[in-house]
Amino acid sequence: MNLNEKALKLHEEWNGKITTTSKCEVKSKEDLALAYTPGVAEPCKVIAKDPEAAYTYTIKSNTVAVISDGSAVLGLGNIGAKAAMPVMEGKCVLFKEFGGVNAFPICLDTQDTEEIIKTIKNIAPAFGGINLEDISAPRCIEIENRLKEELDIPVFHDDQHGTAIVVLAGIINGLRVVKKDKESVKVVINGCGSAGMAIGRLLLRYGFKDVTMCDIKGIVCEGDEGLNWAQADIAKLTNLRHATGTLADALVGADVFVGVSAPGIVSQDMVRSMADDSILFAMANPVPEIMPDLAREAGARVVGTGRSDFPNQVNNVEVFPGIFKGALEGRATAITEDMKLAAATAIASLITDEELSDVNILPAPFDPRLADTVSKAVKDLI
Amino acid sequence: MNLNEKALKLHEEWNGKITTTSKCEVKSKEDLALAYTPGVAEPCKVIAKDPEAAYTYTIKSNTVAVISDGSAVLGLGNIGAKAAMPVMEGKCVLFKEFGGVNAFPICLDTQDTEEIIKTIKNIAPAFGGINLEDISAPRCIEIENRLKEELDIPVFHDDQHGTAIVVLAGIINGLRVVKKDKESVKVVINGCGSAGMAIGRLLLRYGFKDVTMCDIKGIVCEGDEGLNWAQADIAKLTNLRHATGTLADALVGADVFVGVSAPGIVSQDMVRSMADDSILFAMANPVPEIMPDLAREAGARVVGTGRSDFPNQVNNVEVFPGIFKGALEGRATAITEDMKLAAATAIASLITDEELSDVNILPAPFDPRLADTVSKAVKDLI
Repeated sequence: MNLNEKALKLHEEWNGKITTTSKCEVKSKEDLALAYTPGVAEPCKVIAKDPEAAYTYTIKSNTVAVISDGSAVLGLGNIGAKAAMPVMEGKCVLFKEFGGVNAFPICLDTQDTEEIIKTIKNIAPAFGGINLEDISAPRCIEIENRLKEELDIPVFHDDQHGTAIVVLAGIINGLRVVKKDKESVKVVINGCGSAGMAIGRLLLRYGFKDVTMCDIKGIVCEGDEGLNWAQADIAKLTNLRHATGTLADALVGADVFVGVSAPGIVSQDMVRSMADDSILFAMANPVPEIMPDLAREAGARVVGTGRSDFPNQVNNVEVFPGIFKGALEGRATAITEDMKLAAATAIASLITDEELSDVNILPAPFDPRLADTVSKAVKDLI
Repeated sequence: MNLNEKALKLHEEWNGKITTTSKCEVKSKEDLALAYTPGVAEPCKVIAKDPEAAYTYTIKSNTVAVISDGSAVLGLGNIGAKAAMPVMEGKCVLFKEFGGVNAFPICLDTQDTEEIIKTIKNIAPAFGGINLEDISAPRCIEIENRLKEELDIPVFHDDQHGTAIVVLAGIINGLRVVKKDKESVKVVINGCGSAGMAIGRLLLRYGFKDVTMCDIKGIVCEGDEGLNWAQADIAKLTNLRHATGTLADALVGADVFVGVSAPGIVSQDMVRSMADDSILFAMANPVPEIMPDLAREAGARVVGTGRSDFPNQVNNVEVFPGIFKGALEGRATAITEDMKLAAATAIASLITDEELSDVNILPAPFDPRLADTVSKAVKDLI
């Protein structure tokens, strides 16, 4: 049985990957009177007077909603709410297993932006945070921005920011390996969807100066026709030379490549055209933009992918459990840009100078220090 | 420390009465590949082709949403979404502990009927059933009716139907005690809210002929001014003699009284005016319409309350775990009227002729047979 067959069979056996569990026993009349009526009226009354007490008496203190509309699930596209559930349940498993955070999957039977925003606002009282997932761009950006404005709990679109944070952590350590600095390197990001744009923004915020975005039509330039509003926004901050051309043109002399795009679209010739000691993250899943052995053969020095079967796995599971663990424990009302930078530098700092190498720039996803390290970085900024 | 103080302290210690738990380990790269990417794509693809497969591969098979807008919580009134959470969490505990059903609390930050309906429809994909709770009347009736029409999963407003089912079970056995039959007895229900109306409807459906509803202004009669649409509907089916007057007038010669109203509003004189061998359920919480000892002293033969510290506790915890257990196991698309009647008769049948007495008409809420008995009754009708 191959991995896919085994996964399907296991999902059938699990019949749902999470379960709800009671913290309190109800074995006697007194138990019932304490956990339910009449005793339960006491915390209700306290919260009615002081809504903040919800964090003391309810699951809000440590529970995240993992929410998708099923419009952009993995590489599968717009498969809808019900079909998105296994992914959201999987995410809830990771929240709990890695971060100790309770998480519940909510898949929405609407893909209308306003209705999604309204629905999430309506169900927010039970939750201490909202993790958005697998929503197509640029709607996902508008939905996240609006919810951040209108809700008083952290809202985090993991496909954007989880990815951006772990990519930044990897690049920070890649630069340590190749001994280059952020101000002078030339970065090319291929894929101008929500993840690519979030990576671009976070790199700029961290201090990178020369970032160029590419999409399927080539280099993205301010004023290009056909850009959506979010792409038009980031085009103002990137490619400041107003270069035009193909991805191959962009890569000439580039120090860093980040691919969140499509399988096999980077050739060995393109890699050869990059600067010496290049850093290349080919994160298309499951088949990367270029296979790591080919990239290294063509001269790339630090190569990462999204896959667990190659060195330097760049995986946002390193990020989101700790982000929400810290935000919930510190009662943050938002995940700020500074928290994202702090999370990235904290992840990078887990690799000592002695451990650091071409093939060891990031902690393993199972590194038990990750959630606490990221959590602490977040909490220190609350 | 009294019960209320103890309940508050325990709620603080629990800090949320439920938790989410992972069914699958993620201790290795392979675990991650099976429960999350890339393996998780397999069940996603199957569900995308066949939405029914959600019951095979996701939590939908055994998970209920416990949903309130916080508009009519216990006896506390309109305390809002956050303050309603401890009650909804308590309900989720009972679903799991008594019925083995996973349940998650959703408290809505809106009290607009249309928006509640829309929101619940939008979040329905994750759930196998919807348990509505503590929503004020008559909105709760409209919300339930609309959701039943528009969703393909069971929707059940427990305050209405859970209460009605356990009351019917109690009356069935009360009639066994006093050897009267449903066709000839005169029933008075005091409280014309959602619970009272649901009790009236279920009794009529079971075969009671003479049911009179009362509310704070006295006997409810077809054509009365000030009735809401739901009350106007039930007024056509009850009080067929078109009697008018007070609750005291209604009770003269009555065989059965059901109170879902207010503390202490039934006097001993009223009980004395009832027929011989009367049955009286005084279910106002925590203080009943008349205290059981006073009711019995005044001649009531079978007396029940909502309280655990008197005989004959009439508590819907006997009902809802089994109702949803059966509906989920049998993949019911709705909880039908026949299922409600079957659940009531199944609960009543748990008391043998030998066990039956004035003070033993219902199984104890902790009777381990309850959930399976009710579940089987429901499943037999799918």
